[in-house]
Amino acid sequence: MTVLPDDADILALGREAEAMIEALAAISAEEGRLTRLYLSPEHRKAADLVAGWMRDFGLDVSEDAMGTVRGRLKATSNTPLNHRLLVGSHIDTVIDAGKYDGNLGVICGILAAREIVRRGIEIPFGLDILAFGDEEGVRFPTTLLTSAAVAGHVSAQALEGRDANGVSVADALRVFGGDPQRVAACADDPGEVLGYLEVHIEQGPVLEAEDLPLGIVTSIAGAARFRIRISGMAGHAGTVPMALRHDALAAASELVLFIEETARSGVTDSLVATVGELGVRPGAVNVIPADVALTLDIRAASDNPRLEAVKAIEARAAQIAQARGCSIAFEPYHEVNTCPCSPDLQDAAEAALQRLGLTPRRMMSGAGHDGQAMSKLTDIGMLFVRCKGGISHNPLESVTVEDMGLAVEAMVGWIEQLANKERKN
Amino acid sequence: MTVLPDDADILALGREAEAMIEALAAISAEEGRLTRLYLSPEHRKAADLVAGWMRDFGLDVSEDAMGTVRGRLKATSNTPLNHRLLVGSHIDTVIDAGKYDGNLGVICGILAAREIVRRGIEIPFGLDILAFGDEEGVRFPTTLLTSAAVAGHVSAQALEGRDANGVSVADALRVFGGDPQRVAACADDPGEVLGYLEVHIEQGPVLEAEDLPLGIVTSIAGAARFRIRISGMAGHAGTVPMALRHDALAAASELVLFIEETARSGVTDSLVATVGELGVRPGAVNVIPADVALTLDIRAASDNPRLEAVKAIEARAAQIAQARGCSIAFEPYHEVNTCPCSPDLQDAAEAALQRLGLTPRRMMSGAGHDGQAMSKLTDIGMLFVRCKGGISHNPLESVTVEDMGLAVEAMVGWIEQLANKERKN
Repeated sequence: MTVLPDDADILALGREAEAMIEALAAISAEEGRLTRLYLSPEHRKAADLVAGWMRDFGLDVSEDAMGTVRGRLKATSNTPLNHRLLVGSHIDTVIDAGKYDGNLGVICGILAAREIVRRGIEIPFGLDILAFGDEEGVRFPTTLLTSAAVAGHVSAQALEGRDANGVSVADALRVFGGDPQRVAACADDPGEVLGYLEVHIEQGPVLEAEDLPLGIVTSIAGAARFRIRISGMAGHAGTVPMALRHDALAAASELVLFIEETARSGVTDSLVATVGELGVRPGAVNVIPADVALTLDIRAASDNPRLEAVKAIEARAAQIAQARGCSIAFEPYHEVNTCPCSPDLQDAAEAALQRLGLTPRRMMSGAGHDGQAMSKLTDIGMLFVRCKGGISHNPLESVTVEDMGLAVEAMVGWIEQLANKERKN
Repeated sequence: MTVLPDDADILALGREAEAMIEALAAISAEEGRLTRLYLSPEHRKAADLVAGWMRDFGLDVSEDAMGTVRGRLKATSNTPLNHRLLVGSHIDTVIDAGKYDGNLGVICGILAAREIVRRGIEIPFGLDILAFGDEEGVRFPTTLLTSAAVAGHVSAQALEGRDANGVSVADALRVFGGDPQRVAACADDPGEVLGYLEVHIEQGPVLEAEDLPLGIVTSIAGAARFRIRISGMAGHAGTVPMALRHDALAAASELVLFIEETARSGVTDSLVATVGELGVRPGAVNVIPADVALTLDIRAASDNPRLEAVKAIEARAAQIAQARGCSIAFEPYHEVNTCPCSPDLQDAAEAALQRLGLTPRRMMSGAGHDGQAMSKLTDIGMLFVRCKGGISHNPLESVTVEDMGLAVEAMVGWIEQLANKERKN
């Protein structure tokens, strides 16, 4: 018989998580705000703190050549092919970051491993808790380097990327204590790995809006970005009659609204589309806009709806251009395909949430995560944790103690579900 | 019997005007482009050149305390109350200007006066040709200072305005040879002045589109300007579903299109409305816009349609704000009422154009002119000259030789019409 945790246990776990969050948040490159970039002295300190916790909780700790800290819990029974389940997230942050993004996932992994030992839960596979170091991609031109190394997909070229001070990843690795020569040795063997699980804050408002503490990620959204340039004709705001204008901003406004409408009508595919930047030239109160440059960021839970939406937007842009005597050009500059989460891992998460009495809300991840790199190695699964106001990458990022406790508990239950399943196989 | 000028005469006049345009355009503060600001050394040189032409053509030349050059032609018969007709435009330019804006009007006045003498046209009033110096308002925070002085409406305070180097109008006047103490003496006596006529390039595309060389201005448009600030809520472009967004740029786009639609539907009042500046914050490809700041410039041939359009735009903005959970605030920062041209002066211009076989197209002036200041002194009338592509305030500004000849000829005819009318009174 499984003994379910009561509310007091969950709160206690949440308080532990909170104390660890605060301890990590205290390690920053800047006074008064949290900034901890990949391979910085603060990353070194945070990695050491995490390694210390892992050791305290009885895990075997190692650090790979790219700086990923790994705490290993042995299987409680012999496993075929040295099977292991990976659980992780990242301990780097953006500049002026929140405390939970990444860090909470690492802490949930560590606490879940500790609870599995403490509760004597039998696991027929090893459990590796991973603390990645390069998810945010702020310092170097690359991103997801540490998880990509574990997945065996880092090129030597990527290590030549340099930060704003001209320091290469390879140089920074040497200072950090890593080894750019041994990147290949970071890679896990796909034959040994059962899957990769991650807890992460939602970074969006959906769970809060639906009053749910946790959500199950169905996929990490595919995303595409475009630079769009609209050229019309400048003119005097007082002397050019409306009928003779080729106003680039009016054309842009039509396009912005069509982009919004397209995404709204595609709500079943979790389609989101955003024009985040828009600049007008010449940009004077009394001059009709000649040129507008804008960006389009478009994401969806699967690739086809996104690709079709882009097609529709480009077609509409051509119509607008024709009707207004403007030109509209799309320049794609970024594209990532949808990264689906494993249906089996989603189902196991659902069982774990239901056991905690929680609605198993399934949802897309609109933001990118280490799971995208890890999906090249193994099946991935993610749990989202409600965050206040959907705010992320901001000091106002906030998660309640109870939600953190539930997240740890859900991770324990998730691993337990997978253990049960593995034993049946 | 009036002898009409033939095409060769008109071309000859146009070539004279062109030579004078080139001579003035050679006087610039900058190598390779035309820049001639109020009270600059180049303004001094241009004023002297204009005064020389006036003298050559037999006019009595004076320069008032604000730098306006005046060439006077005596009436051919005694006039009651020392009646005079004023004809003018300006010889200052914007930075990197075209050659025709302002300058062509002064040249047309001078050549028209010369033609009146040469042809022995009887005028029962004096004719004063004026070359104003501060129409563009580029150097100092004020504008129309020289014409306002002739109209008797310059405050002592206006002379304290300073340019970017901290030089006040008063200081610059002393260097120029003017006299800030004697501004009041610049004012003409309203009882002596019959009206003010001006030829100016259209600075818009209407005449070109309709294949007409000249147009008759019905009014100088009233104008209002607003700063509009839209506040929504920032969010992650990937994680905030469309239905939960408060996108300030999408709200702005709706408003831009409504502004355009409002002006389009008000075409009978020559309503034009322009959003010329628009800035987005935070302005990142993956962040939903939180704030948008834009400008609105709105003008019409009469005040009521403009005021009603502003009301409609504000009402629609309130609806957009309500529907999107944003706030939209309007801050008015500039308003000038419509300045109507005298119907009698328009009719006289029409007769002059018809005598030349030209369609007397009546049209609004969307741009501001010295006539706005002069309207406080007397009735005003304006003729527009077709310019290539509607381009102005730009080195590409262009007027054909023939159109310049027609403009001089129309000014001669216009003055003749007024002379005939004056004699009948």
